Amino acid sequence: MKRITFALVAVIVLIAPVLIHAQLFSLTREQMVEWTSQNPFDRFPDGRPKVPDALIERARGLSSEEVFAILPGKGFRNQYEDGFHVLHPDKKLVGRAFTVQFMPLRPDLESVINDKAKAAGQGRMYNQVPMDMLQPGDVLVVDLFGQKEGGTIVGDNLFYYLMKGAHAAGLVVDGAVRDLDGISGMEMPAYFRSVHPSYLTNVIITGINVPIHIGNATVMPGDLVLGDSEGVYFIPPALVQQVVDNADVVHIHDEWTRKKFDEGKYKSRDIYGSPSDPALKKEYEEYLKKRLEEIRKTNPK
Amino acid sequence: MKRITFALVAVIVLIAPVLIHAQLFSLTREQMVEWTSQNPFDRFPDGRPKVPDALIERARGLSSEEVFAILPGKGFRNQYEDGFHVLHPDKKLVGRAFTVQFMPLRPDLESVINDKAKAAGQGRMYNQVPMDMLQPGDVLVVDLFGQKEGGTIVGDNLFYYLMKGAHAAGLVVDGAVRDLDGISGMEMPAYFRSVHPSYLTNVIITGINVPIHIGNATVMPGDLVLGDSEGVYFIPPALVQQVVDNADVVHIHDEWTRKKFDEGKYKSRDIYGSPSDPALKKEYEEYLKKRLEEIRKTNPK
Amino acid sequence: MKRITFALVAVIVLIAPVLIHAQLFSLTREQMVEWTSQNPFDRFPDGRPKVPDALIERARGLSSEEVFAILPGKGFRNQYEDGFHVLHPDKKLVGRAFTVQFMPLRPDLESVINDKAKAAGQGRMYNQVPMDMLQPGDVLVVDLFGQKEGGTIVGDNLFYYLMKGAHAAGLVVDGAVRDLDGISGMEMPAYFRSVHPSYLTNVIITGINVPIHIGNATVMPGDLVLGDSEGVYFIPPALVQQVVDNADVVHIHDEWTRKKFDEGKYKSRDIYGSPSDPALKKEYEEYLKKRLEEIRKTNPK
Amino acid sequence: MKRITFALVAVIVLIAPVLIHAQLFSLTREQMVEWTSQNPFDRFPDGRPKVPDALIERARGLSSEEVFAILPGKGFRNQYEDGFHVLHPDKKLVGRAFTVQFMPLRPDLESVINDKAKAAGQGRMYNQVPMDMLQPGDVLVVDLFGQKEGGTIVGDNLFYYLMKGAHAAGLVVDGAVRDLDGISGMEMPAYFRSVHPSYLTNVIITGINVPIHIGNATVMPGDLVLGDSEGVYFIPPALVQQVVDNADVVHIHDEWTRKKFDEGKYKSRDIYGSPSDPALKKEYEEYLKKRLEEIRKTNPK
Amino acid sequence: MKRITFALVAVIVLIAPVLIHAQLFSLTREQMVEWTSQNPFDRFPDGRPKVPDALIERARGLSSEEVFAILPGKGFRNQYEDGFHVLHPDKKLVGRAFTVQFMPLRPDLESVINDKAKAAGQGRMYNQVPMDMLQPGDVLVVDLFGQKEGGTIVGDNLFYYLMKGAHAAGLVVDGAVRDLDGISGMEMPAYFRSVHPSYLTNVIITGINVPIHIGNATVMPGDLVLGDSEGVYFIPPALVQQVVDNADVVHIHDEWTRKKFDEGKYKSRDIYGSPSDPALKKEYEEYLKKRLEEIRKTNPK
Amino acid sequence: MKRITFALVAVIVLIAPVLIHAQLFSLTREQMVEWTSQNPFDRFPDGRPKVPDALIERARGLSSEEVFAILPGKGFRNQYEDGFHVLHPDKKLVGRAFTVQFMPLRPDLESVINDKAKAAGQGRMYNQVPMDMLQPGDVLVVDLFGQKEGGTIVGDNLFYYLMKGAHAAGLVVDGAVRDLDGISGMEMPAYFRSVHPSYLTNVIITGINVPIHIGNATVMPGDLVLGDSEGVYFIPPALVQQVVDNADVVHIHDEWTRKKFDEGKYKSRDIYGSPSDPALKKEYEEYLKKRLEEIRKTNPK
Repeated sequence: MKRITFALVAVIVLIAPVLIHAQLFSLTREQMVEWTSQNPFDRFPDGRPKVPDALIERARGLSSEEVFAILPGKGFRNQYEDGFHVLHPDKKLVGRAFTVQFMPLRPDLESVINDKAKAAGQGRMYNQVPMDMLQPGDVLVVDLFGQKEGGTIVGDNLFYYLMKGAHAAGLVVDGAVRDLDGISGMEMPAYFRSVHPSYLTNVIITGINVPIHIGNATVMPGDLVLGDSEGVYFIPPALVQQVVDNADVVHIHDEWTRKKFDEGKYKSRDIYGSPSDPALKKEYEEYLKKRLEEIRKTNPK
Repeated sequence: MKRITFALVAVIVLIAPVLIHAQLFSLTREQMVEWTSQNPFDRFPDGRPKVPDALIERARGLSSEEVFAILPGKGFRNQYEDGFHVLHPDKKLVGRAFTVQFMPLRPDLESVINDKAKAAGQGRMYNQVPMDMLQPGDVLVVDLFGQKEGGTIVGDNLFYYLMKGAHAAGLVVDGAVRDLDGISGMEMPAYFRSVHPSYLTNVIITGINVPIHIGNATVMPGDLVLGDSEGVYFIPPALVQQVVDNADVVHIHDEWTRKKFDEGKYKSRDIYGSPSDPALKKEYEEYLKKRLEEIRKTNPK
Repeated sequence: MKRITFALVAVIVLIAPVLIHAQLFSLTREQMVEWTSQNPFDRFPDGRPKVPDALIERARGLSSEEVFAILPGKGFRNQYEDGFHVLHPDKKLVGRAFTVQFMPLRPDLESVINDKAKAAGQGRMYNQVPMDMLQPGDVLVVDLFGQKEGGTIVGDNLFYYLMKGAHAAGLVVDGAVRDLDGISGMEMPAYFRSVHPSYLTNVIITGINVPIHIGNATVMPGDLVLGDSEGVYFIPPALVQQVVDNADVVHIHDEWTRKKFDEGKYKSRDIYGSPSDPALKKEYEEYLKKRLEEIRKTNPK
Repeated sequence: MKRITFALVAVIVLIAPVLIHAQLFSLTREQMVEWTSQNPFDRFPDGRPKVPDALIERARGLSSEEVFAILPGKGFRNQYEDGFHVLHPDKKLVGRAFTVQFMPLRPDLESVINDKAKAAGQGRMYNQVPMDMLQPGDVLVVDLFGQKEGGTIVGDNLFYYLMKGAHAAGLVVDGAVRDLDGISGMEMPAYFRSVHPSYLTNVIITGINVPIHIGNATVMPGDLVLGDSEGVYFIPPALVQQVVDNADVVHIHDEWTRKKFDEGKYKSRDIYGSPSDPALKKEYEEYLKKRLEEIRKTNPK
Repeated sequence: MKRITFALVAVIVLIAPVLIHAQLFSLTREQMVEWTSQNPFDRFPDGRPKVPDALIERARGLSSEEVFAILPGKGFRNQYEDGFHVLHPDKKLVGRAFTVQFMPLRPDLESVINDKAKAAGQGRMYNQVPMDMLQPGDVLVVDLFGQKEGGTIVGDNLFYYLMKGAHAAGLVVDGAVRDLDGISGMEMPAYFRSVHPSYLTNVIITGINVPIHIGNATVMPGDLVLGDSEGVYFIPPALVQQVVDNADVVHIHDEWTRKKFDEGKYKSRDIYGSPSDPALKKEYEEYLKKRLEEIRKTNPK
Repeated sequence: MKRITFALVAVIVLIAPVLIHAQLFSLTREQMVEWTSQNPFDRFPDGRPKVPDALIERARGLSSEEVFAILPGKGFRNQYEDGFHVLHPDKKLVGRAFTVQFMPLRPDLESVINDKAKAAGQGRMYNQVPMDMLQPGDVLVVDLFGQKEGGTIVGDNLFYYLMKGAHAAGLVVDGAVRDLDGISGMEMPAYFRSVHPSYLTNVIITGINVPIHIGNATVMPGDLVLGDSEGVYFIPPALVQQVVDNADVVHIHDEWTRKKFDEGKYKSRDIYGSPSDPALKKEYEEYLKKRLEEIRKTNPK
């Protein structure tokens, strides 16, 4: 038993100071680096992977299908979720995941969390605490376990703050928002399950920048979040480069395919998925090579 | 307007006495006054509360959230309902509730109701009877118990009548409509559960201007109906003034909050819900006072 | 009007003096008689149809299918509802409908109702008021608009009272009950949508012994309620005799059909729906006649 | 048009003999003629009814309600289905049904089907085979038993092919599509249950141009498909003429009704359904006659 | 075109005579043999695979999990369906699939089908036609596309016939039954979606002993149907032997695992899935070998 | 018991130090004590609250309603969850919560977790790891985010181990089980969402003995779990004593109430909720006092 007690003390020395400043289940920089060790990019000071801005720009051209073309084949079958109310179906959501986990309120747990937050000079723990921690380009990804009434992470004022004050890239919440009329007029992309006039209530934050799940997708802090009119993909940083590179090929394939269909003399199977006729195949391959070179000039890695 | 008022009186002379004996569960003027005794405003000849036109105009600026800010705190927790197909999400619905209750048809009950209607010179009882009783500015609020097939309260002709003939402010139905293509081109706001090509059938009217419930909201004749892109609020007349007055404060608070966020130097908690810094707090209070005065000049009670 | 007033006074002496002034939408005896004018049987003092005990006894042998065999053909297509948690699937529910209508609570309406109830010496209006008005053999049929949390019409104590104190025949509620472990041990049949540990709350009674609907079935006070393991039928008194008489024929047809199938030499189409072979047809008709005579001796009208 | 006709003949020479041996449950021309024997129009070479182009043009003015006005009365109560994601709610879908039936994949069945397809020189059986059989003006109607993940009949490339290569009139699928962003920019009407980024997988084709059901509607090859913002009607060829003729009357009735409501002096019952006043009735009948004549000049049968 | 016509004629000669006696989409013996070519067992006269009685007996010991242990690994991932009302959760359903496909009624199709049926001396086509074709030990598997009202394949009389007259092994219907009280007292296993008092109506039979799907499971005539308290598996004949053989091993593994847990000295991971300790592993392997020999003596292939 | 205590200590020596490094979000003893600081009872070596055996015994008499009588009033409104398949509705579930959190699998996270587990000598992290950590009397409470296929926490072998090897009190899983036929024959209470024949797959453990939520209830390690035929309550240790004490009063009140109803001379309002008549009230109070004394003798605190 002695040895155990000793080990516990050691752990406290290493972790506890961090926890005092952080939340119930926030990771230290070291833990964050460990849990996201496959990240090939730089990191934020708190250890969160920072997908480069250039890749984020290229990712604006992605669709869910182009992510699907890579992820399941790499074993990542739980990174997509749909069933959202999409605020602006014609705007892509692209940014880095900042995760928050809520659970139904219980007063004993709330009291511990608020005591810790107060001790760390944070006042009480509530939805604005993580909002004030966001970095420009972040997407606030919130597990509110599907709550509607009382599960409204923002209204139009905090939505405005996310967009203008925090320079956030967007919002994904497995829960609700309020002030739909108000936020509909704002440009930031947002994905939510429902809308309700109530305030956020009867819930507590149990984790900031920890792994969470949004429906059947597991989200890690620093994931590249991609939302289109269908749903949202959470792309592990290690796969972002491959996804955007492959999408270039897909785009060229689409171009060529439609050009051929426009000629009006082919059945679908002559051209698509890949041309059956060797001459056509060669034509396609040359087109692909030429266009890739053009694109790569514009889009240097 | 004179002629309309005159016409209304004439109609009352002809119809109202009859209705007392004719409808299954219609209220007499005395009953209506009793059941809506907290109404602070004038009434229609049949006793229904008449929220003043000036307040109705001011209510066009309301959102569901601004009603929520007052009603639950006064014990009114069952006045909001959503889950509607909103015909024009960008148009507010504002008007006075005229309620109709349907139940699934049973021939024995239908025969009694029609006998009474005939005896009162009304022909048979069906959906056009209450429509022809509407006053300008009314919202037809119909409990069709969620029926889809056969639960279509109007098609495009009667929708057109409501809008152009009856000068109704809108329609809320816990049931369906037909002719979606047709009514989509008309401006009147409407909230319905579903759309179906069938006629209204297999149902009977069991009450006109009685208390009804639309989902989990209880509606009284004369309630102020407010619909936005989220859902519909049924506001008791006695609370309308307080709701619109408080909304003025909310609007100013929104203005100031966003102005500060635009300055780009604040965290959300510095400014919202209320400013933590005493100087900011004072700034806000002065802003609020000044703007309220401006608004009150434009919007005299 | 004089006679009506007089009749009311008489009723008051027996039961309702209070109720006439107290309930929102309770019917007078005259109204009840009018709305149920096709009732061929005696009535309770309040005018509610009283299907005779002998017919109720015969109705215990009915199944939903035997009611279906008659009602839709008479135009009654909205008298059946299912989707209930059936407390005792092996016990038939048979009795006379006593209806109660609830709506979501709104304080202004509640205050009017309670003022009226108090003025009539009833204290406040709540679920025990109609329970204390039940007659032996009644089925309490309650429209709680599907409410689960807060929509619990009874727990085990009031369930016990219904069974032992009020001699009720059963309970049908478009809402919930509480104390499932407790009521499961009691013999009275009950049909409910759900179970929740909460108390009945956030609702008000808006009608006692008025027409209500339970899902897609319209129920009138005095209907014969028949529940089996599938669902519940609400049979208008005027059709009860025909339903039970026809069921005798169905039972005999079932007997004969199975007897023939037991012989093992027939295809289904030889025997069922009706025998194709003239000899078999004659055999069946003689069997039917003989058995009907036997049954009618045991079951005199 | 000449060239198209020529192309069709060529296709028949190449494909049709093969299909007889290739498809699991495709009908021969004789069978097709037999199963659609009430068709009053010409047929495609494979026997499929060919509603004339002129009627298809007139059908563009139809709404679901105008089809409903005729079909149930003729006993066709299962020809309408809704619950779709409607790609372009403001565009009518009108065309001839080409049906495809899928079932969940089972390898033993797939192996038989592919063996047959290979033996007939078709390669394997998959979604592009029926697409390459479409005739201009066809609507591809696909029973994918509501499948979402893996039930994506087309992405944007094949959608483009349907529109530009096959000159299809549209798509109805009891299943999914992919590439929503991509297809949203294309003009062809489409009705689908859901959207998913996955490929079409884990399913097999079990019938081409056989009777199928899309939800509760039974579809025959050659049916006139009509989609509006509500849902989709599958109209048997034998009823098309009557539907469009009756719609002319409905349109005129609508015109007249609204014109009268615009006059502002009528209650709804004075005018609609039909005028109660004999003078008004006569006015309407004359209007109808005159307008019908005008329309019939423009729209010769 | 000549060649096409010729081909069509040839097909007619081969298929048509059969169709006259069969149904819309019933298979000839040759087609049945072709579509079930992997069947290793004898066949019924109509070509349907006949899993031997001895294997059926052994299959009574199977659970869904023991089928799952084999089928997905062989690529059969769509053979299981649940979500049924299980009539007798404590009785296994085991038998050979006899499939019937229904679609929503359309009068033109019904008229063709009935003409054909009459021409073949069958009278009209309805639910009793396939019932009279059943072989002892068959399970009637019916695609009624989830229909409840009007989708009642049997009531208690036909259920009795299936059990006593047709010696059927059971019933699986993606639809409803009626007379629940009646059939609950009969021993035959049955799986259905819902119960309703209505008659079977508004549907037509479009296939007998053709491939159908029950939810997400594709069923072929002759499949071994296995139902337990969870759901129903449709096992291709070619895999039945392997499934029952493997289940013997599973049963022995269960015996041994629990025997070890009863000893009370092991953690779960010491024993299950397979023992980590070499001595335990050897003990298990010897136990398995011994017990398999004992079982194989009792259960010779 | 000696041997068990000894075994526990041994296990701690072997496992506990490891866990600190091994689990993703497991709490140290100090953290556990902090997060459950309101616990009034002893603790397990890992800090988890240990509600005393005597209180657990008394809790067997509780129903959900008796917990509801206390918890919401103390601000604990999110401790109840229903919607489970209840394995044995006639057996109470009572024990101490041992919590496990799963998320959808992602390979990068899985690889980190397994590396840590291996480094700590635990092999890979999977469902049997927490099962082998259970203490006698524990209830395994598992957040499997509602997963059905692949979300099967146990089959019959591990269920048997929980019951016989780990002496667990029961199982609550927001997910599935397999082998329903097998586990139905075992006595341990279990609550699950669904049943599926698949193995547990496509998920990872992300926390052991951390706060989790089961639907809308937040569960802390060490909560007293109470399951009856309705649902499951998770009771904070600090409130257990009050709940069971109050339940004694409720039981006596039930006894007395029914005794009075049995006398047959009271309306429900005379007796229930509390007697209106002062004499009856006194009678009740004396009965309560006497019975409480009797009970307290048998059930000393």
